[in-house]
Amino acid sequence: MSDHTYKKIELTGSSPEGMQQAIENAIARAAKTVRNMRWFEVTETRGHIEDGKVAHWQVTLKIGFTMDD
Amino acid sequence: MSDHTYKKIELTGSSPEGMQQAIENAIARAAKTVRNMRWFEVTETRGHIEDGKVAHWQVTLKIGFTMDD
Amino acid sequence: MSDHTYKKIELTGSSPEGMQQAIENAIARAAKTVRNMRWFEVTETRGHIEDGKVAHWQVTLKIGFTMDD
Amino acid sequence: MSDHTYKKIELTGSSPEGMQQAIENAIARAAKTVRNMRWFEVTETRGHIEDGKVAHWQVTLKIGFTMDD
Amino acid sequence: MSDHTYKKIELTGSSPEGMQQAIENAIARAAKTVRNMRWFEVTETRGHIEDGKVAHWQVTLKIGFTMDD
Amino acid sequence: MSDHTYKKIELTGSSPEGMQQAIENAIARAAKTVRNMRWFEVTETRGHIEDGKVAHWQVTLKIGFTMDD
Amino acid sequence: MSDHTYKKIELTGSSPEGMQQAIENAIARAAKTVRNMRWFEVTETRGHIEDGKVAHWQVTLKIGFTMDD
Amino acid sequence: MSDHTYKKIELTGSSPEGMQQAIENAIARAAKTVRNMRWFEVTETRGHIEDGKVAHWQVTLKIGFTMDD
Amino acid sequence: MSDHTYKKIELTGSSPEGMQQAIENAIARAAKTVRNMRWFEVTETRGHIEDGKVAHWQVTLKIGFTMDD
Amino acid sequence: MSDHTYKKIELTGSSPEGMQQAIENAIARAAKTVRNMRWFEVTETRGHIEDGKVAHWQVTLKIGFTMDD
Amino acid sequence: MSDHTYKKIELTGSSPEGMQQAIENAIARAAKTVRNMRWFEVTETRGHIEDGKVAHWQVTLKIGFTMDD
Amino acid sequence: MSDHTYKKIELTGSSPEGMQQAIENAIARAAKTVRNMRWFEVTETRGHIEDGKVAHWQVTLKIGFTMDD
Repeated sequence: MSDHTYKKIELTGSSPEGMQQAIENAIARAAKTVRNMRWFEVTETRGHIEDGKVAHWQVTLKIGFTMDD
Repeated sequence: MSDHTYKKIELTGSSPEGMQQAIENAIARAAKTVRNMRWFEVTETRGHIEDGKVAHWQVTLKIGFTMDD
Repeated sequence: MSDHTYKKIELTGSSPEGMQQAIENAIARAAKTVRNMRWFEVTETRGHIEDGKVAHWQVTLKIGFTMDD
Repeated sequence: MSDHTYKKIELTGSSPEGMQQAIENAIARAAKTVRNMRWFEVTETRGHIEDGKVAHWQVTLKIGFTMDD
Repeated sequence: MSDHTYKKIELTGSSPEGMQQAIENAIARAAKTVRNMRWFEVTETRGHIEDGKVAHWQVTLKIGFTMDD
Repeated sequence: MSDHTYKKIELTGSSPEGMQQAIENAIARAAKTVRNMRWFEVTETRGHIEDGKVAHWQVTLKIGFTMDD
Repeated sequence: MSDHTYKKIELTGSSPEGMQQAIENAIARAAKTVRNMRWFEVTETRGHIEDGKVAHWQVTLKIGFTMDD
Repeated sequence: MSDHTYKKIELTGSSPEGMQQAIENAIARAAKTVRNMRWFEVTETRGHIEDGKVAHWQVTLKIGFTMDD
Repeated sequence: MSDHTYKKIELTGSSPEGMQQAIENAIARAAKTVRNMRWFEVTETRGHIEDGKVAHWQVTLKIGFTMDD
Repeated sequence: MSDHTYKKIELTGSSPEGMQQAIENAIARAAKTVRNMRWFEVTETRGHIEDGKVAHWQVTLKIGFTMDD
Repeated sequence: MSDHTYKKIELTGSSPEGMQQAIENAIARAAKTVRNMRWFEVTETRGHIEDGKVAHWQVTLKIGFTMDD
Repeated sequence: MSDHTYKKIELTGSSPEGMQQAIENAIARAAKTVRNMRWFEVTETRGHIEDGKVAHWQVTLKIGFTMDD
């Protein structure tokens, strides 16, 4: 309701399981130190290939959180 | 074969389960009123975060459908 | 360690199951003829709709691989 | 809370007064026929010039609204 | 002169003859139901290939029209 | 009505007051030497910060004008 | 062969006949005052609609020319 | 004059009053903890709509500041 | 129907006649060695100017074709 | 300090030596006729290849300069 | 091998010598406080001009580093 | 002079020395198997960081070459 200001940080999560897990890993890691996260935006989806298969999914996302007053 | 014209509409689907479900939800909702849908294109992937976890996945997509003659 | 040069090719994989499977299908198909694939980057996510449901997911990706010396 | 689907429409509002008024005019016009508007995103800012001065500000925006179930 | 609001819709026209005809087909189709169309903007040019030749040109365009008061 | 050709120039206007004034300043400056200006398109909005406050708003815009025959 | 510097200008040509003619009109108009034009790049294709038909095609292009020494 | 390095952070400011105020709010909030801010760049303009009117303007900007040696 | 994988190649066709002919020339040239071409997407339109007139139209396009199993 | 207006021009510099020299050549050429140049922004880096080697580097840049009052 | 999360920060390095030195300056400055830097991506190349020559090269880059567990 | 068709391939060159050398390495590698290369366009500049310094510069470029008739 009041005039909040949000900060956006950019993270790259990785996972051998898939895109969605890579995103959730990044958010879980951020949650260790960042409070009041509100939303995320995916900016890039990549991955490493080993032996002709996806070894790691890598998803870059921006996370917005409320700055404490 | 003939000179079809297609219209594209832009929707944002949401789901607590994942990206793919958010897309399928949007298409299922559109199917209630739009006939002859042919393809979709994802334009944005976002989501809401609550308590340090993804609460809702939100995927924006354009849907193309044949205009009736 | 040495001055490798990588080539990037662009493929579109498809799958009735989902986005991730479409990517894995494209990489599996490429693996039949391309050696030394290192990474991929997703550039587009689309799909075909039939009877108001997703019939095929189509994901376009660039794949980078080491050029043999 | 539930799996809402949103539709986005694209409008161009105009005003001789300024950018902000052009946006507000577009939203006011949309409000006559669209219910449950939730957010907007500015995509383009232009204007017409007459006699060396801005005659009309023209701002294009996308408006997202909840689709009724 | 007054504070008009314009709506933009996105169409894909197709034609076996060429790009320009695909655009004109889309506008002609839109004219059946949309009044007061003012301008268009081309956003994508594609086509289908059959037997090594262009079978259909497909041009996507946005059309802006004045919303009635 | 006839086959006009327009030239577009790119200017950056500045103002300590605001975005809109920066645009109007640029157009006023251009009007000293350019005739027949018809429209503008904003391409970038920036500004300088001094002592934790906006000191100057800087808006870049393209201006289109009719070329004399 | 020597270290030429090129300048690029941006024009919008218009024509009731079509896209290609709009480009050629812009280049013909530029040729009245600009020497040593070398190449062009199309950046935007638009048009005005009147009575449900294309009244004018408007194509924006950048033209590069050699700066005289 | 010396070889400064600048860091850029991304914030979203909000305000019920307008775009400009949203930017100024974000910079004022940043000024509480960031010294030596030099410039900003607007990257996105959005807003929330309630009851058919703009309830909050939300402007995302990058802020550059000198890193202390 | 099955899980096809498509490869996309990027070509630049040229023609003294026009944009459309440049595209058709590129596809005709590709057809000499590439089978199963399905679609194309235009990514750039340029041209060379000689003596104040368009000497060659140059259109860059991506062509998608089915990879043989 | 006052409300300066800047004009931006777009040049392509070339050099057989490298990217940086191509930029410096363009600025040096511009300096013959343009006063009060303040900044530049690189928009494109290309080059010509002859006999399997870079023959000329070509860098396109925008140059901003203060308009005289 | 494990599910690392990377953070990306955005810096602008400057140097009177050249582009490459500007990048290296930014990375050297970051190395004073950031551990485990893995990669960088250039996002913008600009510079200041004084007396018709490049006074400072300014290169903006994103730097990715492993977040400590 | 005739209606040439060009093919564009995308490579990433690397070098511990610098951006320019990375580009030249990619072109030298391509020259082993590709004839009639005409131009290149840089699309991305990245690099790996080790021990707080640039270990490898990585530049991605598209190379255009004439297709043999």
